[in-house]
Amino acid sequence: MSLRTPYLLFAGDAPDDLAAKTAHGVCDWRPEWCVGQLRLDGCRAALDLPEMTIAEGAAAGAKTLVIGVANRGGVVGDTWIAPLVEALEAGLDIASGLHVRLSDVPEIRDTAETVGRALFDVRHPTRVFALGTGEARAGKRLLTVGTDASVGKMYTSLAIEREMRRRGMKADFRATGQTGIFVAGDGVSVDAVVSDFVSGAVEWLCPENDPDHWDVVEGQGSLFHPSFAGVSLGLIHGAQADALVLCHEPTRTNMRGLPNQPLPDITDCIRMNEATARLTNPEARVVGVAVNTHAMDDGLAYLKNLEARLSLPCVDSVATGVAPIVDALA
Amino acid sequence: MSLRTPYLLFAGDAPDDLAAKTAHGVCDWRPEWCVGQLRLDGCRAALDLPEMTIAEGAAAGAKTLVIGVANRGGVVGDTWIAPLVEALEAGLDIASGLHVRLSDVPEIRDTAETVGRALFDVRHPTRVFALGTGEARAGKRLLTVGTDASVGKMYTSLAIEREMRRRGMKADFRATGQTGIFVAGDGVSVDAVVSDFVSGAVEWLCPENDPDHWDVVEGQGSLFHPSFAGVSLGLIHGAQADALVLCHEPTRTNMRGLPNQPLPDITDCIRMNEATARLTNPEARVVGVAVNTHAMDDGLAYLKNLEARLSLPCVDSVATGVAPIVDALA
Repeated sequence: MSLRTPYLLFAGDAPDDLAAKTAHGVCDWRPEWCVGQLRLDGCRAALDLPEMTIAEGAAAGAKTLVIGVANRGGVVGDTWIAPLVEALEAGLDIASGLHVRLSDVPEIRDTAETVGRALFDVRHPTRVFALGTGEARAGKRLLTVGTDASVGKMYTSLAIEREMRRRGMKADFRATGQTGIFVAGDGVSVDAVVSDFVSGAVEWLCPENDPDHWDVVEGQGSLFHPSFAGVSLGLIHGAQADALVLCHEPTRTNMRGLPNQPLPDITDCIRMNEATARLTNPEARVVGVAVNTHAMDDGLAYLKNLEARLSLPCVDSVATGVAPIVDALA
Repeated sequence: MSLRTPYLLFAGDAPDDLAAKTAHGVCDWRPEWCVGQLRLDGCRAALDLPEMTIAEGAAAGAKTLVIGVANRGGVVGDTWIAPLVEALEAGLDIASGLHVRLSDVPEIRDTAETVGRALFDVRHPTRVFALGTGEARAGKRLLTVGTDASVGKMYTSLAIEREMRRRGMKADFRATGQTGIFVAGDGVSVDAVVSDFVSGAVEWLCPENDPDHWDVVEGQGSLFHPSFAGVSLGLIHGAQADALVLCHEPTRTNMRGLPNQPLPDITDCIRMNEATARLTNPEARVVGVAVNTHAMDDGLAYLKNLEARLSLPCVDSVATGVAPIVDALA
């Protein structure tokens, strides 16, 4: 991938920090690549970065404007067009993980052509994938799964990769979403792959490897999310994971984006993920739970109770770290 | 999309009837839409329709030439181009379920533009779909699911629609694959939809309806097929089915295309389909099993034993008809 660094992170008009999770992810895992943030009127997300205009970002050395905000449907907001055009005119490339292509917006496409800057639509696969086969392959794989979408699967995956490498284990984070791709420099945005080829794309993403090598595969969605469960299942079958780590956010009252859809019971969720994963890896099992306790007063107590209930290591990837989960794999 | 009827069915140079199974499917289920068949030199498939030249088909009122033959690679055969151009010049549209787009063949594209006729590549969705929501909607829906791919889901769906209509019930077949789309005149080829939008595409395909109206939705793949399970799950969640009919082919020794992948146990398959379907319709249940007994000597005995074991109506959509399943819905 030829993304030029450093980045100016575009938070747009994100209504909350969750909507800017791409910007937060890049900022948290690659702070050395981020010179500042650009926020529009009404933006309620805030990164731990200097606020900059495009001119200031360019002056600070930014080479690429990374669209760090997602909205439902993945379109370019009307109010984004003028600043994106300005960024191109200031000499920045633009990288986007939106469903809609930057080049589908005439003003952006025409300006990029005129000023000779690049548009990177990282969500759109440029490769052709084969159908998945489910054939057993060498190497070990860990996949993060979730009770819901946006519950920390990428963070947990990156934390596990970091912890494994700290211990001298062979480990590679495998990105399946836009933020992960910005952080990893490669990957496949599986939710943009034609549905027939999702499991095949994931088999390509984490191919056979050394017997003691771990691919840590970023999960997507949830088997219990009516919008995304098909993507999650294709990912589970393609990953052929030995180990699953369930990610959870206990304060969520409904599935993300769906006010009337309740969260699944956590043991039902473990059971369903294991049952489906065993189609392509009969040894697959949930080895731990990563809970985002950020919004809780009693996060540590919650983890302790959950651990007693499930007899599995239960951690917060940020607050406690993932060492107990990596212990369980060793 | 809505294809113009009636059709002239193009059997091309099909080496046998299996290669023309799309044409056979359309002819079997919509004979009233088929004015004739067009066969090229060497064609060994034969439909129960008058043989016609393009001029004769046009004179008989055909509005669309339907490509009812598949070949290796899903491409337009070299010998097909001249007759397809002739069809356009005679005033027919062309509909194709091939992998390659008709408009990728310069002679066909240019002629269609010149004479102002339409090319329908039904495998390639032209609409933009919203994300699925799982929100409850009025109307009743039945979805066919399978122990494997290619076990008779389309035929069973069409047989159920026919039986429901025969009884005066309000029922519409909803097509999710290429042959089904030719039969229905419209539909969505769900395995070609970008994975994020599969459940939303299916919600679009079978929207809210009268409380006593049945949409009979054509299933795809199987939750137990490592290549396609994600497509199947998105379809299950989008269909929000009240009733599931499991389709099965007992002589299959492995999952289609995957020599090392065993068939699932039929009760496991029922349980998993019900468990996943209940995410978007808590009342979802398997109401019957449709078995393709064509290759069996003792098909009726098999059905009787299975019925006793499952306590569900077990039929062969062709040999016994689907009346017992429709009885169970009334």
